[in-house]
Amino acid sequence: MSDFPKSDLNTVKRLPKRGHYDRETIYPIVDEALICHVGFAIEGMPFVMPTIHTRIGDTIYLHGAVANRMLNHIKQGYSVCITVTHIDGIVFARSVFHHSMNYRSAVLFGRGRVVETYEEKWKVFEALTEHIAKGRWNDARKPNEVEDKTTAIVAIEIESASAKIRSGPAGDEEEDYALPVWAGVLPVRMEFGPPEKDAPLPESVETPQYIKNYTRKGKS
Amino acid sequence: MSDFPKSDLNTVKRLPKRGHYDRETIYPIVDEALICHVGFAIEGMPFVMPTIHTRIGDTIYLHGAVANRMLNHIKQGYSVCITVTHIDGIVFARSVFHHSMNYRSAVLFGRGRVVETYEEKWKVFEALTEHIAKGRWNDARKPNEVEDKTTAIVAIEIESASAKIRSGPAGDEEEDYALPVWAGVLPVRMEFGPPEKDAPLPESVETPQYIKNYTRKGKS
Repeated sequence: MSDFPKSDLNTVKRLPKRGHYDRETIYPIVDEALICHVGFAIEGMPFVMPTIHTRIGDTIYLHGAVANRMLNHIKQGYSVCITVTHIDGIVFARSVFHHSMNYRSAVLFGRGRVVETYEEKWKVFEALTEHIAKGRWNDARKPNEVEDKTTAIVAIEIESASAKIRSGPAGDEEEDYALPVWAGVLPVRMEFGPPEKDAPLPESVETPQYIKNYTRKGKS
Repeated sequence: MSDFPKSDLNTVKRLPKRGHYDRETIYPIVDEALICHVGFAIEGMPFVMPTIHTRIGDTIYLHGAVANRMLNHIKQGYSVCITVTHIDGIVFARSVFHHSMNYRSAVLFGRGRVVETYEEKWKVFEALTEHIAKGRWNDARKPNEVEDKTTAIVAIEIESASAKIRSGPAGDEEEDYALPVWAGVLPVRMEFGPPEKDAPLPESVETPQYIKNYTRKGKS
C-alpha cells in the first residue's frame, strides 16, 4: 500500500517524528476505533459530531436518518475531516511541562457523496455491522425495505490522511531527574463486558463468541 | 445553574428526547473526558484535532506550542466546536437496524481568544494539570519562564451547548422478539493502570494515591 502525499493539509508540523503517512499505519488506527469524530463546516461554522464509521478500501462510510443534517450537508460534496483517537496512556513527567499522553490518532480528509444504489448500500450495511462486531451480520435480522429507505449513507473517499503516534516513557529535563516526584505512565485502555443479556431473551439463545471475547484489535 | 438557550446550532433534532441543555448535565460529561475533539474551519476547510482541555466556569481552555496552527487560528476569534464523547456500551439488537450505542456526548460552541496575562495563564496551567489528575499540580515541578513563554493558551467562552445521552437496553420491533438472535448490551469503559514507574525513579518515591486509584468520575 502506498503513502498519502504530504501536503499542507496533512503534514504533522509539531513533533514531525510522530507523523505517519502510510496506509499500513493509518488504517488499523481507523478500523480499531468504534466511533470517529466528523468535522464539517456550514457557512464557516465548524461542527464536530461523533458517529460510527466503517472503511472499505480508501472510502469511509457514515450512516444515519435521511433527515440527518450532517449527512445532508456532506452528501453535497463538501469537505469533511474525520478523526479517530485512541488513548493508550497518561504520561506523568516530573515537570508539569512534560506531561503528555500516549496515543494513536488518525486524521482523514475527503469529500462526500451519497450512496444511492441498493448494491453499494447493502455492502455498507454489512460493513457497518461487521465494524461493530465481526460475525454479527450473519446472525442479526437484515434490514427490510422500510429500514433501507429511511437510512442515508454517505461515502467519503480519503484524499489525504496522516496518523500521529506517541508511545514510551516520560521525558524530563536533565536536571529534573533528581526531583522526588513520581513519574511514569498510567496505561489507558477500553474494556468490554461482561455482556448484559436482554431481559426477554430465551435461555436457549447462547451468547456468541464475538460478544464473549469482544475486542477491537485486528479489525483491519 | 441555567440552561443554554436552544437554537438552530445546538438543538438535538434526531431523537430529541436524548437532548440536554443544562450545565448540570453537560459539564460533568466535559470534565470526565480526558481529551476533546476540536473543530475549526480555515477558509471553509474543516479540521478536527484531539487535544487535552480543561474547563473553568463557562470557559474551555486549550494549550499547545506557540507555533500550533490550531491555536493560532482559534485565538483570532473564529468559531470553534468542541466535542467530547464517552462510549458506555454497544447495544446489540435482534435487527441490524436497531443496533446502537450507549453514550454521553457534549457539543460546545464558542469563539476563541488568546490568554495573555501571567495570572490567567498560571491559573490554566494549574487547571490543565488538575484535569489530568487531581493533586498533580502540588507534586510536579511548576512551569519555568521559558516553558511559560513557549506555551500558548486559548480560551473559548461557551456560548451554546448541548449533550446527547443514550442508555438502557436494546429496542426491537415487536415481531423480532421471537427471533433466536442474541440481544443485549456489551458495557464499554475506560480502564487505567497498573502504573508503570519510570525506570530512573528512586525506590523511595512512592506512587501517589491519585495515580494508584485513578478515575475520571467526579471530576466536576
